[in-house]
Amino acid sequence: MSIAYFNGEFVNIDERVIPIEERGHQFGDGVYEVVMVYNNTPCLLDEHLKRLANSAKLINLSLPYTLTEIKNIILEAIKRSNLSHAEVYFQVTRGIASRTHLFPDASPSFSLTVKPVREIDEKLYQTGVDTLTTADERWANCHIKSLNLLPNILAKQMAVDHGKYEAILVNNGLITEGTSTNVFVIKRDTIYTTPLTSNILAGITRQAIIKLADEANLKLVEEDFTVDFLKQGDEAFISSTTIELLPIRSVDSVTIGNGTPGVITKQLHNLYIQQYTKGAD
Amino acid sequence: MSIAYFNGEFVNIDERVIPIEERGHQFGDGVYEVVMVYNNTPCLLDEHLKRLANSAKLINLSLPYTLTEIKNIILEAIKRSNLSHAEVYFQVTRGIASRTHLFPDASPSFSLTVKPVREIDEKLYQTGVDTLTTADERWANCHIKSLNLLPNILAKQMAVDHGKYEAILVNNGLITEGTSTNVFVIKRDTIYTTPLTSNILAGITRQAIIKLADEANLKLVEEDFTVDFLKQGDEAFISSTTIELLPIRSVDSVTIGNGTPGVITKQLHNLYIQQYTKGAD
Repeated sequence: MSIAYFNGEFVNIDERVIPIEERGHQFGDGVYEVVMVYNNTPCLLDEHLKRLANSAKLINLSLPYTLTEIKNIILEAIKRSNLSHAEVYFQVTRGIASRTHLFPDASPSFSLTVKPVREIDEKLYQTGVDTLTTADERWANCHIKSLNLLPNILAKQMAVDHGKYEAILVNNGLITEGTSTNVFVIKRDTIYTTPLTSNILAGITRQAIIKLADEANLKLVEEDFTVDFLKQGDEAFISSTTIELLPIRSVDSVTIGNGTPGVITKQLHNLYIQQYTKGAD
Repeated sequence: MSIAYFNGEFVNIDERVIPIEERGHQFGDGVYEVVMVYNNTPCLLDEHLKRLANSAKLINLSLPYTLTEIKNIILEAIKRSNLSHAEVYFQVTRGIASRTHLFPDASPSFSLTVKPVREIDEKLYQTGVDTLTTADERWANCHIKSLNLLPNILAKQMAVDHGKYEAILVNNGLITEGTSTNVFVIKRDTIYTTPLTSNILAGITRQAIIKLADEANLKLVEEDFTVDFLKQGDEAFISSTTIELLPIRSVDSVTIGNGTPGVITKQLHNLYIQQYTKGAD
């Protein structure tokens, strides 16, 4: 069953625990993470916790608990959920405080949910997904995993309204990332992905893929690439915690490669499944 | 006393009315307004309501009530508060829904608070305030009054940490606006303010000032200006619903004019007080 936790207490997921004057609700003043649970085991949890700490630091937000305490809350919540395959969402905001832009003198709020995974149609992994490109209208610090997600929502919704699965964001002619995914393109056996700057989030799955490519002796470079370069790729895929690796079938209606998931994409996804989705030994 | 309202009910302001899975709390997926009440009367309420409707439209958010219904809720809340001088805050989000980026099939949430005004030290109107300039790191659609306020918070806090009152945001060398204010500079009897584009919010107070200047036969132009132009102004001020018109004493430690509030600034503020802060006739 779904489980929720707010500021020290396990609560029902639909329980009303937040007052109007809360920094998440009024300002999006916080940071978050999403972690997958496979076979009762959270995947790459330490990496997600480390990124949460980094995002918090970048907005001068003190975490209300140590990372070990957060880890223990997560493990307890997973246990209580009785879900072997689950999605964990957690966020920290600057707390409950009378509304003013300045940092309040308040304790940060910690919210968490553990829920059944949002199943992705298995067929999409066989066919690949259609995407479109659109201007990256987000703020200057997309390396921070903040709650200010309105531009991401609007771009994702626009893509779906156009019959596509994901919007790929473009800044000065270069691909940054998807609305909640990183982007990879493969050309002549070299894998390209956008380098880490303040323009993109340092995806945990992205990093795992870089490691897997290295271990498999696949050539991977972190280099900027254009929309045209992406469209001319032999293969392409998007990655995230929830979708893992999902092949791209088309970009702006231009078919990628022969329109079916490529060999390297499938190889990397299989390696990812082997190494990261089997749960504890 | 402070009053709050959430989705159809008057509640206590510290009452916990929002579950974790709410679009405001998890995405900042909503829009808001702040209205001042002078002598029991909300100031420029119709203009604020119209802007709320426009912001909502720009993010494809349906308001849960008509503007007349919202107006009636606001008037009822002011009455219940028994406050003759108050601040009304209200926001609309995409509602309570299981977390996913896509627009949910949910009713929008409407939150409102009426509280005593955050009094501004009267002395600041006599001395003016110190400001600093900083890069405008916000997203591309600042004409939408959205809940994604993290960049505004960070810039404002940074200014205060440096002993200043407000951060003035700079995009490509040009002044956009403050973190929650519009910026005006006066040079040789001409008043300059940044023109309306997607880079700035169409301030209700800004618009009132433009009208007052016109009625007083003062020359006002909506034109972009640089940081240097601002620093070389004879006078300068910031405006917002809550501060009205507040003189700028310095920008990046450069004194504006002779360092005291200028004649035109004072004239415009007096006109504003006369016309907008007296409440109902």
